[in-house]
Amino acid sequence: MKIKELQEYLVNRNIDAALFFNLNNSDPNLIYFSQLSNLSFSCMAVPKDKSPVLFVTALDYERVKSESKFKILQIKQKLSISLQDFFKKNKIKQNNFGVNKSNLIFNDWKLLKRKFKKTKFKDISGFCSELRSQKTTKEIEYITKACRITDRALTETIDRFKKFKTETQVEAWLDFLARQQFADIAFKTIVASGKNASFPHHITKNRPLQKGFCVIDFGVKYKNYCSDTTRTIYIGKPKKAEREVYDLVLNSQLNVIEKIKENISCSIVDKQARDSLGKYKKYFIHGLGHGIGIEPHESPTLSLKSTDKLKQNMVFTAEPGIYLPGKFGIRIEDDVLLLKKPKILTRTTKNLIIAKR
Amino acid sequence: MKIKELQEYLVNRNIDAALFFNLNNSDPNLIYFSQLSNLSFSCMAVPKDKSPVLFVTALDYERVKSESKFKILQIKQKLSISLQDFFKKNKIKQNNFGVNKSNLIFNDWKLLKRKFKKTKFKDISGFCSELRSQKTTKEIEYITKACRITDRALTETIDRFKKFKTETQVEAWLDFLARQQFADIAFKTIVASGKNASFPHHITKNRPLQKGFCVIDFGVKYKNYCSDTTRTIYIGKPKKAEREVYDLVLNSQLNVIEKIKENISCSIVDKQARDSLGKYKKYFIHGLGHGIGIEPHESPTLSLKSTDKLKQNMVFTAEPGIYLPGKFGIRIEDDVLLLKKPKILTRTTKNLIIAKR
Repeated sequence: MKIKELQEYLVNRNIDAALFFNLNNSDPNLIYFSQLSNLSFSCMAVPKDKSPVLFVTALDYERVKSESKFKILQIKQKLSISLQDFFKKNKIKQNNFGVNKSNLIFNDWKLLKRKFKKTKFKDISGFCSELRSQKTTKEIEYITKACRITDRALTETIDRFKKFKTETQVEAWLDFLARQQFADIAFKTIVASGKNASFPHHITKNRPLQKGFCVIDFGVKYKNYCSDTTRTIYIGKPKKAEREVYDLVLNSQLNVIEKIKENISCSIVDKQARDSLGKYKKYFIHGLGHGIGIEPHESPTLSLKSTDKLKQNMVFTAEPGIYLPGKFGIRIEDDVLLLKKPKILTRTTKNLIIAKR
Repeated sequence: MKIKELQEYLVNRNIDAALFFNLNNSDPNLIYFSQLSNLSFSCMAVPKDKSPVLFVTALDYERVKSESKFKILQIKQKLSISLQDFFKKNKIKQNNFGVNKSNLIFNDWKLLKRKFKKTKFKDISGFCSELRSQKTTKEIEYITKACRITDRALTETIDRFKKFKTETQVEAWLDFLARQQFADIAFKTIVASGKNASFPHHITKNRPLQKGFCVIDFGVKYKNYCSDTTRTIYIGKPKKAEREVYDLVLNSQLNVIEKIKENISCSIVDKQARDSLGKYKKYFIHGLGHGIGIEPHESPTLSLKSTDKLKQNMVFTAEPGIYLPGKFGIRIEDDVLLLKKPKILTRTTKNLIIAKR
C-alpha cells in the first residue's frame, strides 16, 4: 500500500531509502508496504526513486516469489552483506536512511550502525503510522470483510450460547468459525463471565460460565486486516439495575458515534463518552478506542490525552466500558469507518441478549 | 522461572537490576521470568537483591494482581516516572542496568537513556536465551503436555482426513481441537498440499487439497510453552519412488535422533542428518531444528553454522525436509527432550499415512 506516498515523503526529506526489518511479523509497516505476512527474518528496502526490494531467507523465497509483485532477493549469507551489495549495485546514495524506530530492535539498529558507518538514521515511524491511519478503498474492503466474518461468527455463537458450558468452549467455537471463513484470529479471544468480566483483558479460562454479564471480545484478520468487536450478553436473569447499567454503556456508545465528524479531536470524543457514564465514569478505565488496520491497535488513539484528530477514511473502534472490580464488567465495541458521516461496520445486535440458565 | 539464577548473574556482573519491556508479548523473557502472557504495555524490574516487580497498566492491573506471585504496580502516568519512583524509594543503585537488546525496541531504549542518564545498559539477551535453553522440571511438564495435545489433535485430524476438502478446513479443525484442549496455537498452522508442500512456510489456502505429499506443521501453546510438530501424509496413491524419498527423510530423522547425546555440537548433528539425504541434500534448505519453550523458535539452533552444543534438559525439534521447487515437499518433525538419552516427546505415527481420494 501507498508506496508512492512513502517515496514522496523520502524525496521531500532527502532520505535515500527506507529500511524495514522484520522477524515473524514484528514490523507492521513491512506488512503494510509489502502486503506480505508470516515472513520469517526479512527486510524491505524502499529507495526514494527506485522500485522496492524484499530480502527474504530460503525458507520464504519460493513462496514469496510466487505471491509478491515486488522484486525478491534471497539472503545468501548475511542480510547486511545483501543490503550493502544492493545499495552499491544500484548506485543508491547512503547519506540518510529512514527506519521505523517504534518497531526496530536495538540489536538490528546496532548492526545497521556498524555496517553503514556514514549513514544517518531518521525515524519515520510517525509518518508511517499517520499514513496507515487513513485507509484506501482496498483496505476498507478488507476491513469490511473482516467485520462481516466477525459478525457471522459472533451471531452464530450467541445464537447457540446455551450449548456452551465453559468460557473456553465459547472461544474455541468463535475461533473455529473464523477459520472456516478463511480468516485468522486478530488477538486472543476474550470470553469473560461473572467477576472475570471486570478484567478488561481477562484470559479466557476453562471454567464453567458464571451468571451475570459475559464480555466477548473477538476480532479476525482477513488478508492482513483486523476487526475488533465486543458484545456483552447476560447469563441468567438480569436485575432492573443491571439492565440500566447496560443501557448506560449502550447509549454512551450510540451517542458518541453519532457525534463523530471530520477533524474532531479524539480527546473530545473520548470525554463525551466518558461524561455520559455519569457516576460510573471512574470505572471506565481505558480509552474510548483505537484505529484498526494491519494491527488490531494502531493510530488514531481515542483517549483523554490523545492529540489525534479524526479524518476521513479512518477506521477505529468505539468501546466504552464499565468495570467494577470483583463485581461485573460491560463493554460494547464497534468498528467505525469515518466517511462524510460515521459508518458502523460491525452489525451484531447490541440489544442485551439473555442466555437463560 | 529461574529468577534466582538471573539475580546471581546480576550480582556476579555487578548489574543493579534487569529491566524487561513488553508490548503484547514482544519480550519472551518477560513472559519467562514472570510466567505471565497477554500483557499489554508492561515492564518487569528484577533488582539483583530484592524481589521483582511488574509494572502494568489499568487494563491488566486487577487481573494480574489475582494471578501473579510478584508485586504488581500500576503505571499511573508514565512508565518512566513509575520506574524512577521505584528505584528511588527502594534505594536501588542505578549504575548498571541489564536489558534484553534482542527484543528491546529502539524507542524504548532511547527513553531509558533519557531518564537514566548516568546508567550503563548491558545486554543480557545472550545470558537469558542460554538460561532458557535448559528446561526445569515444570517447563518439561508443560512442553510434554503441549506435545500430548498436539498428538491428539494431529492423530484425530489425520484419522478423519478424507472429510476435508481444502487446506483451510484441515487447519480450522486442528486449531479447534487445540482450543478444545485449552491450548492456543503456537504459530500459524501450515497445511501444504501438492506443489505448495515445496514451500517450507506455505500459507494455508482455501484451495482444494491436491494429490501428492501434504505437509502439516502444527504447534500449540500450553501455559505459555510451545510444541512444534510436522507430519507429511500422502493424498492419492504414492509411487514407489515417492515412498523411497519419504523413507529417506524418515530414516535421516530417526538416525540423527539416535545419535544425539550430551555435549555434541549442533552443527555435527545437522551435518549428519544432511549428509544422510544423499543427492537430495541440496533440497534441505533450512536447519535441522531449534529449541522450543516460551517461543516456538529459541535456543539452541541446530544448523551447519551453529556454535551451540546440546545439553541435558534442552528441548528442541529434529525436522529434516526435502523441497523440490514446483514439485513436492516432505518434512518430518518431532520435539526431542535430551535427558541422559534423547526422548521423543511427540508420538503421532510417522508411517506414511495414505489418504485415498
